[in-house]
Amino acid sequence: MSSHPTFSPHDFARALDGLHPDLRILGPDALAGRHPGEDPANLNAGVMVQPASTEAASALISWCRANHVAIVPQGGLSGLVGGGASRAGEVLLSSARLNRIIAIHADEETVEVEAGVTLEALQAALAPHDLTTGIDLGSRGSATIGGMVSTNAGGILAFRNGVMRHQILGLEAVLPSGEVFSDMTRVVKVSAGPDLKQLLIGGEGAFGFVTKVVMKVEPIRPHRAVALLGVENAARALQVAARLRRHPALLLEAAEMMWPRYVRDHAALKGFDISWLEADAAVLLVEVSGETIEAATTLLEDELAALWDEADLKGGIVAQSSDQTRRFWDLREDSGFYFAEFPNAPSFDVSMPPSALDAYVAGLSAGLATIGNGLDAYVYGHIADGNLHIAIAAAGPSPSDLKALIEEAVYHGITASGGSFSAEHGVGLDKRSAYLAHVDPAKQALARQLKSLIDPDMLFNPGKVPF
Amino acid sequence: MSSHPTFSPHDFARALDGLHPDLRILGPDALAGRHPGEDPANLNAGVMVQPASTEAASALISWCRANHVAIVPQGGLSGLVGGGASRAGEVLLSSARLNRIIAIHADEETVEVEAGVTLEALQAALAPHDLTTGIDLGSRGSATIGGMVSTNAGGILAFRNGVMRHQILGLEAVLPSGEVFSDMTRVVKVSAGPDLKQLLIGGEGAFGFVTKVVMKVEPIRPHRAVALLGVENAARALQVAARLRRHPALLLEAAEMMWPRYVRDHAALKGFDISWLEADAAVLLVEVSGETIEAATTLLEDELAALWDEADLKGGIVAQSSDQTRRFWDLREDSGFYFAEFPNAPSFDVSMPPSALDAYVAGLSAGLATIGNGLDAYVYGHIADGNLHIAIAAAGPSPSDLKALIEEAVYHGITASGGSFSAEHGVGLDKRSAYLAHVDPAKQALARQLKSLIDPDMLFNPGKVPF
Repeated sequence: MSSHPTFSPHDFARALDGLHPDLRILGPDALAGRHPGEDPANLNAGVMVQPASTEAASALISWCRANHVAIVPQGGLSGLVGGGASRAGEVLLSSARLNRIIAIHADEETVEVEAGVTLEALQAALAPHDLTTGIDLGSRGSATIGGMVSTNAGGILAFRNGVMRHQILGLEAVLPSGEVFSDMTRVVKVSAGPDLKQLLIGGEGAFGFVTKVVMKVEPIRPHRAVALLGVENAARALQVAARLRRHPALLLEAAEMMWPRYVRDHAALKGFDISWLEADAAVLLVEVSGETIEAATTLLEDELAALWDEADLKGGIVAQSSDQTRRFWDLREDSGFYFAEFPNAPSFDVSMPPSALDAYVAGLSAGLATIGNGLDAYVYGHIADGNLHIAIAAAGPSPSDLKALIEEAVYHGITASGGSFSAEHGVGLDKRSAYLAHVDPAKQALARQLKSLIDPDMLFNPGKVPF
Repeated sequence: MSSHPTFSPHDFARALDGLHPDLRILGPDALAGRHPGEDPANLNAGVMVQPASTEAASALISWCRANHVAIVPQGGLSGLVGGGASRAGEVLLSSARLNRIIAIHADEETVEVEAGVTLEALQAALAPHDLTTGIDLGSRGSATIGGMVSTNAGGILAFRNGVMRHQILGLEAVLPSGEVFSDMTRVVKVSAGPDLKQLLIGGEGAFGFVTKVVMKVEPIRPHRAVALLGVENAARALQVAARLRRHPALLLEAAEMMWPRYVRDHAALKGFDISWLEADAAVLLVEVSGETIEAATTLLEDELAALWDEADLKGGIVAQSSDQTRRFWDLREDSGFYFAEFPNAPSFDVSMPPSALDAYVAGLSAGLATIGNGLDAYVYGHIADGNLHIAIAAAGPSPSDLKALIEEAVYHGITASGGSFSAEHGVGLDKRSAYLAHVDPAKQALARQLKSLIDPDMLFNPGKVPF
């Protein structure tokens, strides 16, 4: 690489000036004071380029290739595994100005949208058409569609609608060569040669920069009812979810479980009343939609009455107002509360086949106990698709010295059971060792070969997923 | 390639004898008299190898690689684009003995299954668990799961459940290198590096031999009602389908449309009574499920009464017996009837965004009229996902001389409208010119590079999708 010039952030800003009229270049001064998002290293490159068109993105990428400059694609900076982290000498390629909703095909329930549109902005644009996205997640206000494509995001509705891979019909991207890859189909049935856009979906920015997509959407169901239920374990929670999924007049919109320590500590911190909950029970949040709010509420209450003994519920409370609904959801979605007490808590995002969840959580607790040091886990997640979020708390000093042992406890048995060490956050920087340890070697070798083929100079998001 | 030995089918049978105990080798004598399936060239290679294990498939593929022998993967031989066609000097690699249903996880609604299991056999095995596949298609008796993966099959339920790509959670395959690629996850949420199994799904046998998969399944809904409805056009059919999809107590199971000439000629051939249908109307077959057969029938009749004026129905008839239901479905599924009169009828399988369907069909008719020669089209298909099957009939001589002109008329405007020149059948041999003409050149170039990387000797299904 020594034959190529190296650039300081100020050099970049000068060199890129005038490259394409649709490029906005933000140097160190413009970036100073900006919040870096979920990873403190997101803005470390010190220079960000915001194209407002596919052509401008292509011009920037071609320039980077000619000058051997590495590119870190960025969306809403809400990623949790360092997938957007950057270093000096790299250029941040942001989708911030690719923020147009190109077309809403209401009758077809599809939308064409640029990559930088946030999930929440898309939901707001769809609402007047009585439509919404088939994927929803807590960081909807900042997460962009392009970022969600790149991490194959899942969220709350995946148990019903699948993940981003199942929602994307068409996709356009700029490849590391600078070429534009265009496959903007608007149909679900396409058997027209290998479906190469699948490499960009979940590609974590390694194979190109996504500029726009065609996405499925679905009818909005505004009439909701929400309950918090005490449950003994995941099996009971799944029993509740299964019954609600089969209800002829209700649609299950969410089934989010929080294990006892998560509930206890979060409720104490926020002053949330859990006097209705039996001691040491976990909490399941369920949300259903129906023909009216009253119908949804009444039918949910009827179902819960029937489930009370059948699923051995340990308490339950149905929201009686939109304010109470919001507070129920805050208990689940404001999930970073533990970082206040444990700022270095290692966090994980795994998935397991639902029937294996209770054994997994029991094994995790036992594994952490074996390590000692007072280690304990906050466990919560999207129970109906087996996706658990886990944060490791320690009573004593920071658990960072115990990293390898903790990872062993968290990842134990996941692959053999048919689960995944990363469910919806990706690999990025933080899960590289797990990728190396748990992904089939033949698959790793093939991924490396593909990366070398598509990005031979290794300029796209270098150092992330270990290629 | 001249430095490699060439084998006759008898040579193969001898050379492969004893390679692995789980390999069955069928030479020309054993294959003589076998029906070749949908393509007369399927068995032309004259030698078929049937592994009963992944290891045996790997041994065969490694041997082929060492001896530079081309491999044609085959499933149920029901493909319609020559994707399994073979030539002397090649070896057929059949999934026929990979026919085990490994595990049914009823509570999770997933199944682990080997590639050679037919769709119908899987449906039969699931039925005692009150489950069925989320994909269904007319050739269910012969189509195998592996073949359906390789063509990314769609069928009747794709409007609701997506295509095979959306149903497959995990996959194992033997790569052209002979290595086993294993990604048998049983969860929907996986963001653990690039999802390379997506290359095998819809890969038409170019990137390896699929040996087993994990598939989503769904509750069986046995209580059905079926109707045939006269409709003016696709817009009206979609109006009916949209209303039934939103019914709170019915689930739409199928929406299959047949344009007027298809209905008229097929009904005449089979002696099917269409006296209830207004002249020159198209026919929409709808199937719904409900809590009981009686409820499904009554609710469907109520909906159709409301739709009669609203959707300007041109006649309608609700099946009153299982025998009548079967005859309704035969009208749609026994779709090859036109080959009796037009044995060389070029046939196509395209998809269009639903709102563009009527303009497309009108343009097709106009295009064929411009060519002259009495050309006309049989049009039918899965209307709710915009998938049309098209066969070109000519009153005069065979239309084979007019191939280029006919393809121009059929494919006109499809890509620009966001549709696909191949919806669910694949590219194979027959759609190669359409692939070259209609797929984005950057995508074609990338596909060629991937093929060279994964199968550098071009031994897997050579000559199909033009790599």
